[in-house]
Amino acid sequence: MIKPLGDRVVLQAIEKEEKTASGIVLPETAKEKPQEGEVIAVGTGRYENGQKVDLEVKKGDRVIFSKYAGTEVKVGDTEYLVLRESDILAVLD
Amino acid sequence: MIKPLGDRVVLQAIEKEEKTASGIVLPETAKEKPQEGEVIAVGTGRYENGQKVDLEVKKGDRVIFSKYAGTEVKVGDTEYLVLRESDILAVLD
Amino acid sequence: MIKPLGDRVVLQAIEKEEKTASGIVLPETAKEKPQEGEVIAVGTGRYENGQKVDLEVKKGDRVIFSKYAGTEVKVGDTEYLVLRESDILAVLD
Amino acid sequence: MIKPLGDRVVLQAIEKEEKTASGIVLPETAKEKPQEGEVIAVGTGRYENGQKVDLEVKKGDRVIFSKYAGTEVKVGDTEYLVLRESDILAVLD
Amino acid sequence: MIKPLGDRVVLQAIEKEEKTASGIVLPETAKEKPQEGEVIAVGTGRYENGQKVDLEVKKGDRVIFSKYAGTEVKVGDTEYLVLRESDILAVLD
Amino acid sequence: MIKPLGDRVVLQAIEKEEKTASGIVLPETAKEKPQEGEVIAVGTGRYENGQKVDLEVKKGDRVIFSKYAGTEVKVGDTEYLVLRESDILAVLD
Amino acid sequence: MIKPLGDRVVLQAIEKEEKTASGIVLPETAKEKPQEGEVIAVGTGRYENGQKVDLEVKKGDRVIFSKYAGTEVKVGDTEYLVLRESDILAVLD
Repeated sequence: MIKPLGDRVVLQAIEKEEKTASGIVLPETAKEKPQEGEVIAVGTGRYENGQKVDLEVKKGDRVIFSKYAGTEVKVGDTEYLVLRESDILAVLD
Repeated sequence: MIKPLGDRVVLQAIEKEEKTASGIVLPETAKEKPQEGEVIAVGTGRYENGQKVDLEVKKGDRVIFSKYAGTEVKVGDTEYLVLRESDILAVLD
Repeated sequence: MIKPLGDRVVLQAIEKEEKTASGIVLPETAKEKPQEGEVIAVGTGRYENGQKVDLEVKKGDRVIFSKYAGTEVKVGDTEYLVLRESDILAVLD
Repeated sequence: MIKPLGDRVVLQAIEKEEKTASGIVLPETAKEKPQEGEVIAVGTGRYENGQKVDLEVKKGDRVIFSKYAGTEVKVGDTEYLVLRESDILAVLD
Repeated sequence: MIKPLGDRVVLQAIEKEEKTASGIVLPETAKEKPQEGEVIAVGTGRYENGQKVDLEVKKGDRVIFSKYAGTEVKVGDTEYLVLRESDILAVLD
Repeated sequence: MIKPLGDRVVLQAIEKEEKTASGIVLPETAKEKPQEGEVIAVGTGRYENGQKVDLEVKKGDRVIFSKYAGTEVKVGDTEYLVLRESDILAVLD
Repeated sequence: MIKPLGDRVVLQAIEKEEKTASGIVLPETAKEKPQEGEVIAVGTGRYENGQKVDLEVKKGDRVIFSKYAGTEVKVGDTEYLVLRESDILAVLD
């Protein structure tokens, strides 16, 4: 298991099948870097003025994150993205 | 639904039909990037010295924001702009 | 109406008729960017160590501001300048 | 009257007649930018950790300031320099 | 013994035998810089708003860290990496 | 008299007669910029988290300071160096 | 005696006789800049949120420090290194 530290969050990116306006499915290399992911694990929280505060996102949330944010890590054969919660823009409900 | 985190706000840009001084309607490419938007959703608030504080803007507000601020995201077919409340300059009443 | 957020202030620039030392009135393009303005609206205040503090300037004040500070916005046909109070140098009495 | 905001100070520069080592009086263009000034007005104070604190300098003080600090403004025919108190190095007694 | 100061952590990098997709074992120079390590020693803690706080990782933890973070030091014949806890992304369980 | 503000200190540099290893006295231009000085006056103190704290150095102290720190000022015929106390590295006893 | 200010530490670098893998002793110019030193004197402490806190290292400690950190000073014929405690990575026991 992978447990992020502090205000960090572990995501798995969600690849969207991408079609052009005319309906053509794009091959891998023509797609944009995905900006959606599923939260796999969250850190223990962050400090606000000396008080520990829980993160806003939780395991299972589907989130939108800043393109190019975070660090890609590979554990076994799975690719994860570890980023700070502040690089997560919004939760999709 | 899209729920922004912390001090972030989700907007939908308001495109103004733009005319030149002489009354000619400008084609898409000659327009300036819009700086007006409608607030779609607001985050849970921001911390000021360890205390959580509500955002000043609310759903439905018509706002002016810093050109080039924020991140454009697409959910389904809708384009949103996610930015920090501090990138919003003023509310139009 | 335009209502600035937080520590922001909305100004209308005051154009001074500019003369050279020899008394010649300068055409538009030879003038310096104005640094004087009238306060149109002020934000709700700023936070100092977790406490909300009123701004020092108020509607109607004639102020001097940092050249190039702030963002120009157009509401209807009026040009405003939205800047942070910290970009205002002094009030003229 | 010109009233600076917050931690700002309004000065009038004091031009020193400058002589070279050999006693020759230097023409305007060969002089260094003055670093001495007289305090004309002081701001309402600055915040230290949420508490308002008076400035150290007062009207009439003769001060030494950082070369190139501050903003030159002209009110009527008088040239002033508006700078933050932290750009004032020392008071001459 | 090596005892890190404050919020610093001493790691020993874990070299993974790396194979390409086709099963070929890569020679030293073709491998990526390792991002996994074992915690050898942790500092006395860090300050959060004037309060000393223990680090989250402990001796023996297997961690993932930011590529290129920290400083390599050699004590006797052993190579260590000394980095700040904030450069550790996650603990592997 | 010159009275520095806040956390500032006024020094007079101490020029050391410099000899090379072989005993040759170096002419002015071949000397390094001095890093030793005598404290002439100290500011009223600095703020730490809202509390005023006295400076550590005092008038008469012989100190070592960061090369190139501070601002040179001339009062009458005397050259002073005004720097922040944090640019003073150590006191020589 | 040399007494560092605040959070500063005075070190004397420890030069290690360096041999290559094949046992050849390296001449001066081929050696790396030393990263080990002995603590000669420590400052009076640093402030954490308005409270004075003792430094972690003490006179006599053998420490590892960041290459290129600090300022070299010469007092009499002795070369010292003055650096901030935060540039010390670890203590060797």
